[in-house]
Amino acid sequence: MTDTLSTVESVDAQRIRRDDRAHVFHSWSAQGQIDPLPIASASGSYFWDYEGKRYLDFSSQLVNVNIGYQHPKLVAAIQEQAGKLTTVAPSFANDARAEAARLIAELAPGDLDTVFFTNGGAEANENAIRMARLHTGRHKVLAAYRSYHGATAGAIALTGDPRRWPSEPGMSGVVRYWGPYPYRSAFHAESQQQECERALEHLRSTLAVEGPQTVAAIILETVVGTNGVLVPPDGYLRGVRELCDEFGIILIADEVMAGFGRCGEWFAVDHWNITPDLITFAKGVNSGYVPLGGVIISRAIAGTFQDRPFPGGLTYSGHPLACASAVASIGIFREEGIIEHARDLGANVIGPALADLARRHPSVGDVRGLGVMWAMELVRDRDTREPLVPFNAAGADAAPMGEFAAACKQRGLWPFTHFNRTHVVPPCTTSAEEVLAGIEILDTALDVADRYYTGG
Amino acid sequence: MTDTLSTVESVDAQRIRRDDRAHVFHSWSAQGQIDPLPIASASGSYFWDYEGKRYLDFSSQLVNVNIGYQHPKLVAAIQEQAGKLTTVAPSFANDARAEAARLIAELAPGDLDTVFFTNGGAEANENAIRMARLHTGRHKVLAAYRSYHGATAGAIALTGDPRRWPSEPGMSGVVRYWGPYPYRSAFHAESQQQECERALEHLRSTLAVEGPQTVAAIILETVVGTNGVLVPPDGYLRGVRELCDEFGIILIADEVMAGFGRCGEWFAVDHWNITPDLITFAKGVNSGYVPLGGVIISRAIAGTFQDRPFPGGLTYSGHPLACASAVASIGIFREEGIIEHARDLGANVIGPALADLARRHPSVGDVRGLGVMWAMELVRDRDTREPLVPFNAAGADAAPMGEFAAACKQRGLWPFTHFNRTHVVPPCTTSAEEVLAGIEILDTALDVADRYYTGG
Ligand SMILES: Cc1ncc(COP(=O)(O)O)c(C=O)c1O
Ligand SMILES: Cc1ncc(COP(=O)(O)O)c(C=O)c1O
Repeated sequence: MTDTLSTVESVDAQRIRRDDRAHVFHSWSAQGQIDPLPIASASGSYFWDYEGKRYLDFSSQLVNVNIGYQHPKLVAAIQEQAGKLTTVAPSFANDARAEAARLIAELAPGDLDTVFFTNGGAEANENAIRMARLHTGRHKVLAAYRSYHGATAGAIALTGDPRRWPSEPGMSGVVRYWGPYPYRSAFHAESQQQECERALEHLRSTLAVEGPQTVAAIILETVVGTNGVLVPPDGYLRGVRELCDEFGIILIADEVMAGFGRCGEWFAVDHWNITPDLITFAKGVNSGYVPLGGVIISRAIAGTFQDRPFPGGLTYSGHPLACASAVASIGIFREEGIIEHARDLGANVIGPALADLARRHPSVGDVRGLGVMWAMELVRDRDTREPLVPFNAAGADAAPMGEFAAACKQRGLWPFTHFNRTHVVPPCTTSAEEVLAGIEILDTALDVADRYYTGG
Repeated sequence: MTDTLSTVESVDAQRIRRDDRAHVFHSWSAQGQIDPLPIASASGSYFWDYEGKRYLDFSSQLVNVNIGYQHPKLVAAIQEQAGKLTTVAPSFANDARAEAARLIAELAPGDLDTVFFTNGGAEANENAIRMARLHTGRHKVLAAYRSYHGATAGAIALTGDPRRWPSEPGMSGVVRYWGPYPYRSAFHAESQQQECERALEHLRSTLAVEGPQTVAAIILETVVGTNGVLVPPDGYLRGVRELCDEFGIILIADEVMAGFGRCGEWFAVDHWNITPDLITFAKGVNSGYVPLGGVIISRAIAGTFQDRPFPGGLTYSGHPLACASAVASIGIFREEGIIEHARDLGANVIGPALADLARRHPSVGDVRGLGVMWAMELVRDRDTREPLVPFNAAGADAAPMGEFAAACKQRGLWPFTHFNRTHVVPPCTTSAEEVLAGIEILDTALDVADRYYTGG
């Protein structure tokens, strides 16, 4: 593959491919079975390879480029801070750090007033768990199947998808539960409301048999991301909040993917007016221009560490360059109405257009989402809901999804695919026209999926 | 304190203090008992507060600013890459990422050819352990007392200092051993050579009782950092390497602090001509201008993941902005001979000057180090070696060290103190004159420590 391409590729691209294959170890991959595409540049909702081919990005890289690529004001803010002060240890005070914390605290619901900064999402969840355990004096954490919380020993133990398996046994004390997923209900529910009630009943039963007084925290993705864009039925999050209150359990909302515009709100919990005790964030806070994540902390939990040391940290907690980019990004979101745009895109552009695809393509079994966070679930049969490819399929079993993705890429659309789903998660700044152009490409590529359809 | 200062502090500093106290959650601290100093700017070996007071930095923040503050060429490289392309997902190839990996692989010893990038040191160690476990098919990891490896669930379980205690129980499978520490030998050794032999014998005995065939890895800091600048006696690392070879155990050298010039070499292992199987790095690779860390991987271990997926990752693995800063930093190190300068500073400036302090100050019980990584151990009695403050002292017990640090700060030197030690870890670019000026301040401040001296 590399050999044929190299005849048309630039010398630059050949050198990058060579160095990459020789020296870069890629995540989640068999190193001998990948052929990473060199990216030359990016702007707005697009990136380009070294052959000049343009891709409309329906994945926002790893669902992090919420503001779009190379936003000129955000780039300028990074350049300015780089010239001013790049790095300061966590024990000092710093203007960029203090301002980022204040802005994030102001955006966060309820009394979530204080921010502990990390470099990314996994470290945010690690520290949220640490806070919850020390605050409650309890050890167990309830985490959902079909979730991803990161890949450090604690975060991967929380994770409820196959990426956890090779890292077991990991951190002790994680108990698993099932969250709501109306299209494939674990509770034999037949409506959103029934799914909500039964999922809450299941959670209450799980707490009962675990001993609620032994449980420090329940962690959930407000809207489950990579594992399916599972939007909780109305009433579910409120019910979880009430269960937590009843038993003195900390509610941790992992908004690493769902936060900062992705769901058409600053925080996805805003959609249901819920205040968790801890919110973890990363990605959209600065669109990944500089690595940054963190935990937003309720007053009560911060109070626990008022006179007692918090036993956690990292060299780059509150990194000035990262924090300055968060400050600038929040400013740009406000000036440009990006939250409102994201909400509008979901309600008036993406939602209706995907519903239209579902009407015309039998392989589209389900469409769900909000804001700029959508999934289409592809099936072989709408009645049985047999997925287009099996759970956690690899190799030949996964071929139909591979063909679908290839059809998108060929036409200049970079899709986000996972298991039997394709997600529609472009930058939150993507225009309606761009989104519709991308959905037109999905339309064509879905013909590939339709060919595997065996239902009526 | 804040109130008195605020009468002389600028409005800026007051605002930063206010936002910091209201919204920033600081690592490793009781939030109500700290008063973080706002830093206004920094350059070379100095930083300034908002009152215009200048501090010579003998801590390099958290021993990460190896290249000094705001190096103009490194700042320019970050600004340039920011304008070009800030973020690309790990699954793509990218020029900055590929070049950073090639340069690091070229610097690394032996066949350590491939680099897995992370955001910092904890994540690097987490992934090194994951690789070692999957490569060997074994679970246990031997980690040393008196070590720090980071604060995520796996890294903190590896850590052999009191910072681990509140996070227990954590990741399973960690077994603890004692490393060499001639000044306070765990083996009743009376010479460097005896310490080396007995520490190796202890390690072999520990392996024997644990079952060497159950051990995936031995992890150590090549030169132990925060826990004391413990320089291994000649022969120790070679002995550990041989033990690992004998039993098919992976040797992980944590060079997060010791690497990239700190010890007067690119990698501290170079000082003893040892090739580990995995080296973890962060800090000095780009002096923390952008969060970055990683694992450098032997060909054999990379080979394990040739046809079998590596089950780990993070959104910002191989972040282009971070990688571009590593490329620039390595270039600057070469152009400016920073490695050679660091080596020379240790051998001809810091070492002799600290030895001189030890001659004149009874409280200096031991001086040790290499490159720009030195410690002075302060004692109440040179014969009994009773430390100036007890192990892990807090509050009033720690007061003598607090007074010592305050005396340094008052005179414009920012020291690194830990337990009963002060470390001399300025940027590797600090000039001999600057170092000597700082040591003159230590000289005065040591009078404080001498007052607690009770020995003969
Ligand atoms: C919901 C969620 N939590 C946590 C993480 C982990 O974040 P990171 O990759 O920055 O460690 C991710 C990453 O995709 C995520 O989607
Ligand atoms: C030797 C060593 N390993 C690992 C770490 C953890 O690195 P980070 O704080 O970037 O997670 C540190 C940090 O001080 C360290 O000194």
